[in-house]
Parts: sequence; C-alpha cells; structure tokens
Amino acid sequence: GALRLAQDMHLSGKDDKASRLFEHALALAPKHPEVLLRYGEFLEHNQRNIVLADQYYFQALTLCPSNSEALANRQRTAEVVQTLDERRLQSLDSKRDALSAIHESSSALRRAKKEAYFQHIYHSVGIEGNTMTLAQTRSILETRMAVDGKSIDEHNEILGMDLAMKYINASLVQKLEITIKDILELHRRVLGHVDPIEGGEFRRNQVYVGGHVPPGPGDLALLMQRFERWLNSEHSSSLHPVNYAAYAHYKLVHIHPFIDGNGRTSRLLMNTLLMRAGYPPVIIPKQQRSKYYHFLKLANEGDIRPFVRFIADCTEKTLDLYLWAT
Amino acid sequence: GALRLAQDMHLSGKDDKASRLFEHALALAPKHPEVLLRYGEFLEHNQRNIVLADQYYFQALTLCPSNSEALANRQRTAEVVQTLDERRLQSLDSKRDALSAIHESSSALRRAKKEAYFQHIYHSVGIEGNTMTLAQTRSILETRMAVDGKSIDEHNEILGMDLAMKYINASLVQKLEITIKDILELHRRVLGHVDPIEGGEFRRNQVYVGGHVPPGPGDLALLMQRFERWLNSEHSSSLHPVNYAAYAHYKLVHIHPFIDGNGRTSRLLMNTLLMRAGYPPVIIPKQQRSKYYHFLKLANEGDIRPFVRFIADCTEKTLDLYLWAT
Ligand SMILES: Nc1ncnc2c1ncn2[C@@H]1O[C@H](COP(=O)(O)OP(=O)(O)OP(=O)(O)O)[C@@H](O)[C@H]1O
Ligand SMILES: Nc1ncnc2c1ncn2[C@@H]1O[C@H](COP(=O)(O)OP(=O)(O)OP(=O)(O)O)[C@@H](O)[C@H]1O
Ligand SMILES: [Mg+2]
Ligand SMILES: [Mg+2]
Repeated sequence: GALRLAQDMHLSGKDDKASRLFEHALALAPKHPEVLLRYGEFLEHNQRNIVLADQYYFQALTLCPSNSEALANRQRTAEVVQTLDERRLQSLDSKRDALSAIHESSSALRRAKKEAYFQHIYHSVGIEGNTMTLAQTRSILETRMAVDGKSIDEHNEILGMDLAMKYINASLVQKLEITIKDILELHRRVLGHVDPIEGGEFRRNQVYVGGHVPPGPGDLALLMQRFERWLNSEHSSSLHPVNYAAYAHYKLVHIHPFIDGNGRTSRLLMNTLLMRAGYPPVIIPKQQRSKYYHFLKLANEGDIRPFVRFIADCTEKTLDLYLWAT
Repeated sequence: GALRLAQDMHLSGKDDKASRLFEHALALAPKHPEVLLRYGEFLEHNQRNIVLADQYYFQALTLCPSNSEALANRQRTAEVVQTLDERRLQSLDSKRDALSAIHESSSALRRAKKEAYFQHIYHSVGIEGNTMTLAQTRSILETRMAVDGKSIDEHNEILGMDLAMKYINASLVQKLEITIKDILELHRRVLGHVDPIEGGEFRRNQVYVGGHVPPGPGDLALLMQRFERWLNSEHSSSLHPVNYAAYAHYKLVHIHPFIDGNGRTSRLLMNTLLMRAGYPPVIIPKQQRSKYYHFLKLANEGDIRPFVRFIADCTEKTLDLYLWAT
C-alpha cells in the first residue's frame, strides 16, 4: 500500500513526498525485499544516495540470497560504493597526517588534546546514561572532589575511564599484540572503581542488550580466544586502521564478555587500535546513541558497513575537533 | 634525676606529684630498666595498678633478661595479672551471652545493629584520617549519593568497608577456615573502589608504618602462608576468641602485606573471628588512634598484652553499645 503510494508520488514528480512514503513503507515492513529494492532504486537514481541504495540491496540479498533483482542492482552499485568507502578512508588518512604534522610542543595542540581528552570521557560515559556535564567531568578529573547531587557511581565511571586511558597511553599503545589479559586489565580499570569484584572478570550469567542475545558465559573463553587471534592476525594488520578498529569494536560488543562496561571497553579497544595507527582517540557523541545502537543492530543482521561508516564519520569529526583548534 | 625526685615525692607522701614525676622520668628514659622497675613498684604498691606494674616489669625483663629485680617482681605479679586477664575475658563472654539472649526479631536489637554497623565503618575509616562525619557515612551507605565538599576517595573508602562487611556476613563468618585467598578477597573489597589495581594484591614495594619496618615484598608469600597456618591451627582454636582475634589483628598489621588498607583489613579479620565466636564486630574509636598505635608499638617491642587488653576494652564498649540500646 505505502510502497505503491510512494512509487506513484515519484512518478508524479513529487520526490519529497515519495521520500517520506518510502521511509514509511520501510518502517512498516523493514524486512520486505520489494520495499528495500524499490526504495533503493529511488535512492540510487533520484537521490544520488548510492551508498544507502547499496545498503538496502545488500539487505534484500541477505534476506533472499537468490533474488535476481537484488543481485542485478548490486552489480551496479557494489564496486562504486567500495571505491567511495576507500576514498573516504584515504581522506581520513590525509587529515590524520595533517594533524601529525603539528609539532608536539604546540601549545594549541596540547590544549586541544586536553580538551578532547575530557570530551572523550564525557561522551563515553554519557552514552550509557551518565548525567554529569562536561564541566563536572573536567572538575572530577582535575580535583578528584565530589560533585553535589550526583551518585558516587557516576563519579566512579569517570574515574574508571581516566584510569583506563592512562593504561592505554602508558602500556597498550606501544604493544605489538593485544591479548585477552590486556582486555581484562582494560576492563578492570573501566569498571573497577564502580565494581571491584566484576572489574576485570568475564560475566558468569546470560545477559541481553538492545535486542541482541550475546553468547552464554560458557562460550566466552573460546570466543575471546578466537577474537584475540583475529586481533593479532596477519589479515588484521593488512586492514585499514579505521576498518580494523571498527570491526574490533563490533566483535567485542557482540561477544559482550562482561556483565557491564562492554561498550566503554570496546570503544577504548577501538581507540587503542586507532591510536596505534596515529589517529586520536575517537569520540562517539552521546547524542548519537540511537544511531550507534541502530548501526550495531544492522551489523548483527549481516551488514557491518553502515557501522564502519559511522565510525569513520566520528573519526572525521574528532580529527576536525583537533584541526580546528590548532 | 627525675627518677630520684619521683621517689622523694613518694617518700614525702606526695603521691600525685610522684605519679607525674615517674611519668616524666619514663618519658625521658623509656627503655631504662631502673625507671621501669621503680615506677612499676610504685604502681604495684601504691596505685594498686598491678597490670601496668607487671607491664613495666615485663618490659624491664625484655630489655635485660637477666635482671634479678625484674624477675623477682614478676614472680609476684605475673600470675595475678594472668588471672585478672582471664577473668576479664570471662566477663566479656557473659556480656556476649547476655546479648545473644536477646531475640533476633527484637526491633531494638535491629536498630542497635544498624546503628553500630554505621559507627563501625565510620570509626574504621576515621582512624586513617577520613573526614566524613557519622551522618555523612550513614548518608553515603543509604543513598549512594555524593557528599558535597569531600573527595571521591573518602566516599570510596566507606563503600569499600560496606562491601567488605557484606562479604564477611555472607561468606566468611560461616567458613571453617580463613585462607590467604579470603584475606585477599577481603582486601579487594576494602580497597577496590579506591584502587582497583592494588585491591586484592600484595604490595610489590617496601613500606614503613609508624616506626615499624614490615617485611620486604619478597618475604610476604612465605609469611602469609605461615600466618594462614597459624590462623587455622589447633592451637589457635583453643585460644579465647578475643585473644585469637587480637593476635590475628596484630600479626597481619605486622606483616603489612598491602600497599594500603592493612589496618582496615586486619580489623575486619579480627572482627570476622570475633563474629565467628558470637561477638559483635568491635569498634576501635577513631579518637583512640594514638593509643591504638602505641599498643601496636609495645607489641612490636615484645609485649602484646597491652594491645590485647585494649582490644578487650573496645570489645566491652561495643557490647555495652548494643546492650544499652536494647
Ligand atoms: N544490538 C546490539 N548488539 C550488540 N551490541 C550492542 C547492541 N546494542 C548495544 N550494544 C553495545 O552494548 C553496549 C552496552 O553494554 P554495556 O552496558 O555492558 O556497556 P557500558 O559500557 O556499560 O555502556 P555504554 O557502552 O552504553 O557506555 C553499548 O554501548 C553498545 O556498544
Ligand atoms: N608501629 C606499628 N606496627 C605495626 N602496625 C602498625 C604500627 N602503627 C600502625 N600500624 C598499623 O598500620 C595501619 C596503617 O596501615 P595502612 O595505611 O595500610 O592501613 P589503612 O587501613 O589504610 O589505615 P588505618 O588502619 O589507619 O585505617 C594502622 O591502622 C595500624 O593497624
Ligand atoms: Mg552499562
Ligand atoms: Mg592507609
């Protein structure tokens, strides 16, 4: 119904109305291959959004692997999108190199780093609901004094991120390999001030997160060993750092090995890998929590590329934060 | 000089002045056997303080093992004092039994326990300098909200004591043996909120505390194994619980196996042992910090009995706290 209306609008030349109706049709039937294909074609040919079109064709193909239309559509778009993604990563490398060119002793750079350091912690604890403001976060880290009207846990979440960042800077960034033990040590710091018992320990229970059911506790050891192998594999070292870091982030939150702090630890691991490649620690803004969760869901459903593009966007915005302040 | 004056005052019948001068002489020369013996004799014969007299004779004998006067004096006092100490412990048992007789469902008892619970934590963190008031301690434990104007560490010290007490109540009190692992788990809770890295770990460095130089880090494993054996030995199970708990407290702070939190952990261990014997967790008031340190020093110098008597005093006062409120 809604799909037919959308197509009619488009044929009448009313593309704005068509857009909204295609969105509506997709919301009503998000796993309907025909909706995905028609909307994708509209996006590809009329909105010049070949990346989103390809995402929908990919999704249709995931749902119906033998669908010939989806296959045909992807024939047109897959390589174009891959090239666009690769170019995007190259431009990130350029921005990174521009930032690296600024001398360490630049006082503007030091001020930018310090400010970004606080913002990174503020946003990472903010994603999971911490109510401290940026100013309060800064105050806690600079004075170690309590902020009136806030819970002790919220203070300890911030202290934990700081302890973890110091550990990354002092130990992890220089390491050639990241081991399971390193990830446990990272988590010990992320969560330890809040929960000294669970910090640095795998969970012993089944948990549920945003519609995703992670592996049971009995499977964690094996899955983490596989993850460790992947992290340190030849193949991984050949990946572009933004891809590598985004995959690592996703794989770790998918396993969800901890009772809490999986998001923060995975984002810190992602940033460790980015920092090893000369990138600054990337900020995922707390305001983008629903986008972040949405892209994780899409990855669970079979397409990790939107999530990687999201991480690339955050990487670019973080690089701009530094570049504009210097 | 001062000693002769003290003796003269006594001979003149001016015992108050003599007391003060004996104190002065002892302060000037605390390790002088003659001062110890003369003062002891004054205490024994004129002040009826046979316990303190015996302590000074014991001290003189420790300094000069062949001193015949000290030996002779102790011949008079040693057994009397031992009997006094034993009777003291029996009266503590009676008070304990009186407390046990009150039914668990008594609301007055529940209120007394709750109030004593907060006071115990307040005093234990207070001994090492925590500046929270009793009301702030209660507020932190009941609301988990930050107290304005205080450091985050001070909040976390209190949370740590609560976590440790819950662990004792849920796990340790029922155990037949206390292992090194149990003590590490206790310390993990005591210190973990403040320091998630050092909580539950032996120190790796030499430290110094109140004039005492504890064993080097390399000796800790062996000394803790010996301590664990003593804790669970047949001999220990034959000791009066107050003696046993006081010795355990002393032995653990003497080893000082942690970088911080030794006092709190040792007092918690002492209380675990007391609770296993039906005693309530004993409060050492923060105002008595200098006495507490003084008696530890005397124990280091060879006489643990003043420290044990101090623990017995605190035990009695804690029992009274409960008994008077019920
Ligand atoms: N559908 C999903 N599939 C996989 N992972 C998810 C999904 N939704 C959310 N997540 C991840 O789980 C994290 C939340 O898990 P957890 O509460 O253990 O982490 P946290 O560090 O405490 O919280 P946060 O990451 O929100 O700060 C999210 O941050 C996100 O990374
Ligand atoms: N002369 C001494 N010999 C042995 N132990 C001592 C001596 N003086 C103090 N202590 C013990 O050392 C403890 C202090 O050590 P530490 O700082 O590790 O413990 P804490 O738990 O942080 O502090 P506190 O016990 O004061 O609350 C004191 O509480 C006391 O039990
Ligand atoms: Mg969480
Ligand atoms: Mg201390």
